[in-house]
Amino acid sequence: MSGSIRFERDAGDARIGRIVIAHPVKLGAISVAMWRSLRDIAASLDAMVPTLHSVIVCGEGGNFAAGADIAEFPDFRFDPDTLRDYHEGVIAPALHALRATDVPLIAQIEGACVGGGLEIAACCDLRIGQPDARLGAPVATLGFPMAPDELAAVLAAFGRAGAAELLLEAGLLDAASALQRRLLHRVADDAASEAWATAQRIARNPASVARANKRTLRQLLAGGPTEPERAAHFGYAASVTHREGVAAFLEHRAPDFHDDQR
Amino acid sequence: MSGSIRFERDAGDARIGRIVIAHPVKLGAISVAMWRSLRDIAASLDAMVPTLHSVIVCGEGGNFAAGADIAEFPDFRFDPDTLRDYHEGVIAPALHALRATDVPLIAQIEGACVGGGLEIAACCDLRIGQPDARLGAPVATLGFPMAPDELAAVLAAFGRAGAAELLLEAGLLDAASALQRRLLHRVADDAASEAWATAQRIARNPASVARANKRTLRQLLAGGPTEPERAAHFGYAASVTHREGVAAFLEHRAPDFHDDQR
Amino acid sequence: MSGSIRFERDAGDARIGRIVIAHPVKLGAISVAMWRSLRDIAASLDAMVPTLHSVIVCGEGGNFAAGADIAEFPDFRFDPDTLRDYHEGVIAPALHALRATDVPLIAQIEGACVGGGLEIAACCDLRIGQPDARLGAPVATLGFPMAPDELAAVLAAFGRAGAAELLLEAGLLDAASALQRRLLHRVADDAASEAWATAQRIARNPASVARANKRTLRQLLAGGPTEPERAAHFGYAASVTHREGVAAFLEHRAPDFHDDQR
Repeated sequence: MSGSIRFERDAGDARIGRIVIAHPVKLGAISVAMWRSLRDIAASLDAMVPTLHSVIVCGEGGNFAAGADIAEFPDFRFDPDTLRDYHEGVIAPALHALRATDVPLIAQIEGACVGGGLEIAACCDLRIGQPDARLGAPVATLGFPMAPDELAAVLAAFGRAGAAELLLEAGLLDAASALQRRLLHRVADDAASEAWATAQRIARNPASVARANKRTLRQLLAGGPTEPERAAHFGYAASVTHREGVAAFLEHRAPDFHDDQR
Repeated sequence: MSGSIRFERDAGDARIGRIVIAHPVKLGAISVAMWRSLRDIAASLDAMVPTLHSVIVCGEGGNFAAGADIAEFPDFRFDPDTLRDYHEGVIAPALHALRATDVPLIAQIEGACVGGGLEIAACCDLRIGQPDARLGAPVATLGFPMAPDELAAVLAAFGRAGAAELLLEAGLLDAASALQRRLLHRVADDAASEAWATAQRIARNPASVARANKRTLRQLLAGGPTEPERAAHFGYAASVTHREGVAAFLEHRAPDFHDDQR
Repeated sequence: MSGSIRFERDAGDARIGRIVIAHPVKLGAISVAMWRSLRDIAASLDAMVPTLHSVIVCGEGGNFAAGADIAEFPDFRFDPDTLRDYHEGVIAPALHALRATDVPLIAQIEGACVGGGLEIAACCDLRIGQPDARLGAPVATLGFPMAPDELAAVLAAFGRAGAAELLLEAGLLDAASALQRRLLHRVADDAASEAWATAQRIARNPASVARANKRTLRQLLAGGPTEPERAAHFGYAASVTHREGVAAFLEHRAPDFHDDQR
């Protein structure tokens, strides 16, 4: 049975989506087709209606994702052109789309979060681990280095010291070690419950505001924002959401953001 | 009673200054006038004589600073021009002046350190928390995103992972959580005592040296230093302070830096 | 007895090298001649045959390195030209050579790791501390600031918050404090044994792969990789090492990387 990556809205709360990495017989190994699905899904998030407040990225069957589906490797890895296309034309666009979306991404990390799985987690905004999580990038054991765009995502999330340890020792870290190194934001006995609770916390506030914050973070990391981006940033001045948030505070009541426009 | 921000020298040790955020009836909420005072004070630190070794930034009445004074918001927030001027013409210059001073800044964080208060703490060199500290940037609950220059300060101090958690979850972290995430350098039962002890440790060494170290850090973070900045750096070669420090070490005695020239 | 820095292969396992900072009567103080040796050794690592998998950097006699050899300072420190040449013509090239090598560097940190010693440790990929380790950059106590190129290495390894604390407080951190601040990757009761075990873990995987990963990290931190660097990266496509790693995984056996070409 081959794997798939699917997007779904939570049945009970449409403000919360899930990207499910589903390949349980292979611990969530990610095939070329699955990387392409992931890119398409991630690229579509910004346009989704009704308002999507956050997306939980998770695996199915107890593992986040064990990495690339190595069974496919002989088809393309041993020629420089097809190899490069795999890394730069298949994986990098998926990671790029994850890093480019304005929708908050919560990684719910159970079991294996390895290689390509770790790269996906690195592109999320929040990483919640379960005690059984094991994180690593042991790509060296397969006889090859991490591709530049993938290492860029790992480096941005985990820093020079973290990336060096992950790649050179090429081992797996348990949840406590990953927390100590700040690869995880927190560890919870039930990562699914904590990811859900986190999504609920995020959904209390306007989706438009979360998206604006992610946009500004991305602009800053790219050296900006530019003058037009600055001007655009303050376009929220007269918005219903802005007026309601300030008014509610001054009136000592809870804000009602249901008219928020993403 | 409206708030104020004041600068004072320590009564017992003029080498140590304090920037006091004083608005106790509002948990240290910062008005437009207070942001302007903060900018003026921070911009004046480099020129202060006699030698100022460090400045403790603290609140009055048990809180560091609860953020902007929201009572003023209706006056200017709902028009893009006055909104932008508030963030870029009032707050950003204060944060910039804090980040631009060469004088070491120690944040003494008791109680609420929230929103604009967290932004001020992010501009300090050392952050000492008390167990009752709670840190956060729940600006999303007010229906608007963090302005770019303010997020730049938060990002520089707390990194991508920290900034994302603060802004997207929009909650408050207790002292232990803030320490684990390295938002605080340390936690002490009495933050005022520990800030004072830290200021004393800093004051043992020449003020000119601390300032040079901060200058070099700033140059490096801006992509430099330039060749003239490099040449200027080594201008201390023949200084009394330099000669005394090296001589004292070689003579197995404590150095006497009282002739240090800032 | 003057000190020296020497390179040696491990007697039992030629895949592992050691850079030994040997000046035990001065706690590993580093003279001008020793800095020059360090530069020469570090610059020679990439070309070493047979395959060198990693290098442990360590002290002799229970200390990593206590910093520069201050007895030499009166010879050159009090003139701007000779001072600058010492920092930029002697120390900076040694640190640069350490940061430029593709061979993984493991700092085995016992006892004093101070000043120039901390700068060397900052240039390593992994830092393993012993409980007796004490780390710091108390250069201010000598009456002068850290030179820009040295601070650049400290900043890259320990971040703005870590560098500020090290330089402004100018104290020494014990192993637990250094671990909490992520100056150390881990603490082990016997740092030599743990450094050795780490080197063994690294040596299980191809040296060519570790080197490629370090090269990509360096390219990313320099703003790249460039298009030629990207193309070169994927040159491993048809290599024996790559084929063996993938084949071994698919055949459920341990890979045999003994034909790896560095």
